[in-house]
Amino acid sequence: MEKGALLYEGKAKRLYATDQEDVLFVEYKNSATAFNGQKKAEIEGKGILNNKISTIIFEKLKQQGIESHFIQKVSENEQLVKKVEIIPLEVVVRNMAAGSFSERLGIEEGTPLKRPIVEFYYKNDALNDPLITNNHIEILCIATKEEVETLANLALKVNEALKEIFQTIGVILVDFKLEFGRDREGNILLADEISPDTCRLWDAETKEKLDKDVFRRDLGSLTDVYNIILSRLGGK
Amino acid sequence: MEKGALLYEGKAKRLYATDQEDVLFVEYKNSATAFNGQKKAEIEGKGILNNKISTIIFEKLKQQGIESHFIQKVSENEQLVKKVEIIPLEVVVRNMAAGSFSERLGIEEGTPLKRPIVEFYYKNDALNDPLITNNHIEILCIATKEEVETLANLALKVNEALKEIFQTIGVILVDFKLEFGRDREGNILLADEISPDTCRLWDAETKEKLDKDVFRRDLGSLTDVYNIILSRLGGK
Repeated sequence: MEKGALLYEGKAKRLYATDQEDVLFVEYKNSATAFNGQKKAEIEGKGILNNKISTIIFEKLKQQGIESHFIQKVSENEQLVKKVEIIPLEVVVRNMAAGSFSERLGIEEGTPLKRPIVEFYYKNDALNDPLITNNHIEILCIATKEEVETLANLALKVNEALKEIFQTIGVILVDFKLEFGRDREGNILLADEISPDTCRLWDAETKEKLDKDVFRRDLGSLTDVYNIILSRLGGK
Repeated sequence: MEKGALLYEGKAKRLYATDQEDVLFVEYKNSATAFNGQKKAEIEGKGILNNKISTIIFEKLKQQGIESHFIQKVSENEQLVKKVEIIPLEVVVRNMAAGSFSERLGIEEGTPLKRPIVEFYYKNDALNDPLITNNHIEILCIATKEEVETLANLALKVNEALKEIFQTIGVILVDFKLEFGRDREGNILLADEISPDTCRLWDAETKEKLDKDVFRRDLGSLTDVYNIILSRLGGK
């Protein structure tokens, strides 16, 4: 598969065309960003770690019947994915209070929620990715009512699968962010990445943070904790 | 009816007990506040204007079959209301984009929405009254799923009635905030006030702002524009 023109550069990944119209090359970058890009760093090895972790997770989800855009890993920091049109929503699932949720609602970080909840954030850097409601999504014509329901149900299904994957390796899945896209036929497909960049992961015993909060909150070496996740998932 | 002990003082009103357990005295204050209390002023006559306007509106709503906590006006700046336990939600209905909605979603102020939408804000000064979703309301045990539906339906019903009331007097109802309470039997009842403090009201011809945005945005005399609303509603 040939790597073609750069189509899009995000904060953490670059997307390239390939010689197949519906297949893209994804290159995981070493950039770490937080607070809508206000905090930035280049961290050697981060792209490789996230490419490997995301690959393992997408493969495990597939084994459990959850399809995604992921096709295959092609190098240390690259994978092939199915081309989709990204829906501009960050679909967040929360099992425990943390981060912006704790701040917004005044619920202490680490408080378990009585059931997992789904939130939607409008993926829009200029607006600072605001929390939005189902009504807002409809008014903005981002997705139909039925699609919003599909997204929420898919996100909760991914949550059940991920919780188990992480529980098996002694990690609590606190919350995570998903993105979805529409393929050429309009089918909704899980996209983007699933990694410690997009999940809050706490060690089940020590409650040590094994995710991007290490970078956001200056708690230590990002690659150290991402390496822990990768090796517990059976990667290296 | 005797005015008893002060029970609660909010930004714009004081509530007093009466000699009847389920009846309260409401005194409308002259305080104007905006941006969660960061901007403040005392404006002579504001309490009287809002008491009169709110009285007329609650009476008009009652004529259209929409009950509220309002019982009767007892002085220039006081009214009697049925005692309810306030649900800590600001229920906002929007017909056009304006204010925080425009900022959040990047939609120009004055853009008509394809249908009226209801939003819920968590009435919590310490948290700055954040926008919350139906899931958040449930997680916080503020109201049940059924109650949230009732609130949204009631708010939309009030919107239809208010839109007509204001249209008749040449005023566009851009958006407004309602509060609801539960009476002793647990019934949900429209409460608080409906006034230019809680509604965005634009002159239908000139689009002149006839509401608290005049204070928020330093556009002129608040009492001048509240007086316009009062007199168009047939009060004096």
